[in-house]
Amino acid sequence: MAINLEPPQELLPIKGVKLASFTAGIKGSGQPDLAVVVCDPGTEVVGVFTRNLFCAAPVQISRKHLQKSPTRALIINSGNANAGTGQVGFDAAVNSCQFLASCVGCEPHAVLPFSTGVIGERLPIDLIQQALVDGLKDLDENNWRSVAEAIMTTDTVPKGVSRQFVLNGKTVTVTGIAKGAGMICPDMATLLAFIATDLSVENKLLEACLKSAIDKSFNRITVDGDTSTNDSCILMATGTVDAPPLTDPETKAYQIFSEAIGEVMIELATSVIRDAEGATKFTTIDIFEGATETDCLQVAHTIAHSPLVKTAFFASDPNWGRILAAIGRSGIHGLDMSQVSIYLNELCIVSQGAVDDEYTEQSGQQAMHAEEIDLTVNLGMGSAKTRVWTSDLSYDYVRINAEYRT
Amino acid sequence: MAINLEPPQELLPIKGVKLASFTAGIKGSGQPDLAVVVCDPGTEVVGVFTRNLFCAAPVQISRKHLQKSPTRALIINSGNANAGTGQVGFDAAVNSCQFLASCVGCEPHAVLPFSTGVIGERLPIDLIQQALVDGLKDLDENNWRSVAEAIMTTDTVPKGVSRQFVLNGKTVTVTGIAKGAGMICPDMATLLAFIATDLSVENKLLEACLKSAIDKSFNRITVDGDTSTNDSCILMATGTVDAPPLTDPETKAYQIFSEAIGEVMIELATSVIRDAEGATKFTTIDIFEGATETDCLQVAHTIAHSPLVKTAFFASDPNWGRILAAIGRSGIHGLDMSQVSIYLNELCIVSQGAVDDEYTEQSGQQAMHAEEIDLTVNLGMGSAKTRVWTSDLSYDYVRINAEYRT
Repeated sequence: MAINLEPPQELLPIKGVKLASFTAGIKGSGQPDLAVVVCDPGTEVVGVFTRNLFCAAPVQISRKHLQKSPTRALIINSGNANAGTGQVGFDAAVNSCQFLASCVGCEPHAVLPFSTGVIGERLPIDLIQQALVDGLKDLDENNWRSVAEAIMTTDTVPKGVSRQFVLNGKTVTVTGIAKGAGMICPDMATLLAFIATDLSVENKLLEACLKSAIDKSFNRITVDGDTSTNDSCILMATGTVDAPPLTDPETKAYQIFSEAIGEVMIELATSVIRDAEGATKFTTIDIFEGATETDCLQVAHTIAHSPLVKTAFFASDPNWGRILAAIGRSGIHGLDMSQVSIYLNELCIVSQGAVDDEYTEQSGQQAMHAEEIDLTVNLGMGSAKTRVWTSDLSYDYVRINAEYRT
Repeated sequence: MAINLEPPQELLPIKGVKLASFTAGIKGSGQPDLAVVVCDPGTEVVGVFTRNLFCAAPVQISRKHLQKSPTRALIINSGNANAGTGQVGFDAAVNSCQFLASCVGCEPHAVLPFSTGVIGERLPIDLIQQALVDGLKDLDENNWRSVAEAIMTTDTVPKGVSRQFVLNGKTVTVTGIAKGAGMICPDMATLLAFIATDLSVENKLLEACLKSAIDKSFNRITVDGDTSTNDSCILMATGTVDAPPLTDPETKAYQIFSEAIGEVMIELATSVIRDAEGATKFTTIDIFEGATETDCLQVAHTIAHSPLVKTAFFASDPNWGRILAAIGRSGIHGLDMSQVSIYLNELCIVSQGAVDDEYTEQSGQQAMHAEEIDLTVNLGMGSAKTRVWTSDLSYDYVRINAEYRT
């Protein structure tokens, strides 16, 4: 059960971006498992990909195609990651690009492939081709929601969000979708996320905007510390709205735009944590008073990845000793444990490295019982800070990942 | 259920080391929870402690006392870690040393305190004093086994081992005990382990021997990546056997001795993994062909700490994609995934970064079904290697750690 997460009510179309979803038969379950996104000529497309060296064939190809020529289409399948499949998998991904290119009428390099699902199984390219032959007539600007569903794997809720803002009197729209529930770790690009806007944004600026937003959204979430082989995040700007193109990062217009992109990406990223495999808690970890942001992040990740902290959260057990122990082993330089304080929501549980005098077990348990918990740590070292979102470690996380291929 | 681990059959006495165990009432369960070890004057004692900055009061005091004067006695309680307890906890640990010192007739600095159990609760010093008053008459050289039981927390089996070897015609004995099942991570000293020999070993040599053995035993195991606040490992050499003292690391005698210590410590360390919280698998991870041992260790830990790899092992699922993904995100420099191969026991599952041509799912499942599995990774980079032992991630791990304080 996802935590306070409903399917998106309304995903606004972006003029110039058409989408379609298919049930190609890649998933054994008979659920939708294939999607195509086609954007108008002139659309600027930028992407960020996993830093896992063992990256899937589609990631390698998307990286290459993005550099070669302007992008016109995306082909995305779920149920199969096309990773660890060697030359056969590489050829299958190239083949899917060629096939879609011939249907759409563009260069094969103008197609980016994406896959998510089980690692190490061969991509059934024949099923994909068959689905494309039959279904491309369904391409429509109003299909964001059905595509959000077609890219799901262990997700229980489709994830998407739209935002609008006014620029020089014109209404600009941003719509994004994402999938992901496990094999999620921050030091990377992201799971699969596709975001589009109808504004015109110069390529380098669009890329800068994406990278900056990722560092405050997808790169700040973690379920299990396992960076995926297939993570990709794509940002498209069609320029179909009648507003002046963005070319200068120093303008108010760029600031408004990048704030909107940032908001959309934080909402998508936190949706992933709300729907994390087996999650019963949605925890926001804030680290304050660090010497550097890197230090803060290291502490936040050590807490967020600790199986002992995660099981304590699952049990609604205010076992602050495990949090202190995680901070103590985080390995940051110059940490003085006697300066550390910890809060659950507004409740001070640890001050100066030991349990707070006012703290009672009862108040701690009350705070831990909520589904959404803010955990704040003050390191007492400086003025740097960071925020990370994470889930707990439940029986269901074990069940989902033990049964994943059975 | 521990994996192929029986309680020790016979723990050999070490002349000059007397032990006693007590049920002081620190544990609510009514199980034994206190132990005392007293060694003869002249015994050399060395120790290694946790690197967690948030270390418990007894760790801080033991470190200090070891430097101040020769050690005569150890006082060890289970059920309460005396960590995160501030000045009160510090005073309680000092008090327990003073009290035991007055009973034994030695300086307070000659006593080392050790605690293991729940973090953040106050140590009931009155219960400890009362138990000592009543029970010190039971001190005996044959009580290793009962002390191994008294220091258990979530352990299901007491852990101990004895070894004998002949040096210059004299039989030398080494006996060691350990406890630990969770909050176990390699980059540290160890859980709680107490090892004694009747050989005479010069202090610096004894320390070098302990450190070298730890790096191949307790520092090579991991259950959950959570380095404890209380880890301590003590090695005592009484010199009560009639054999020449060890003073030179370049001698054959030292080599025989350090090999015996190494064997005892590997057996104790692997016992901890066999009895790891919720463990259903005992996995030996060998990394070969690394550029450096540090690289090998980083890869081994990334695999051993991956919740996805651990749940796949729990499910007996040969999900080699998760192992490749862990290697790919391990962050070592210059790794070429197309050179990586992976073996389960003798079975090659991955060669050159992709599934091996001869591999079948059936053969993989057969290999994964065993309780003890050797996972071998060849990085294809150089000639360095390392070995790490770990457990899987099961429902019971979650249950044990969710219910720990309830």
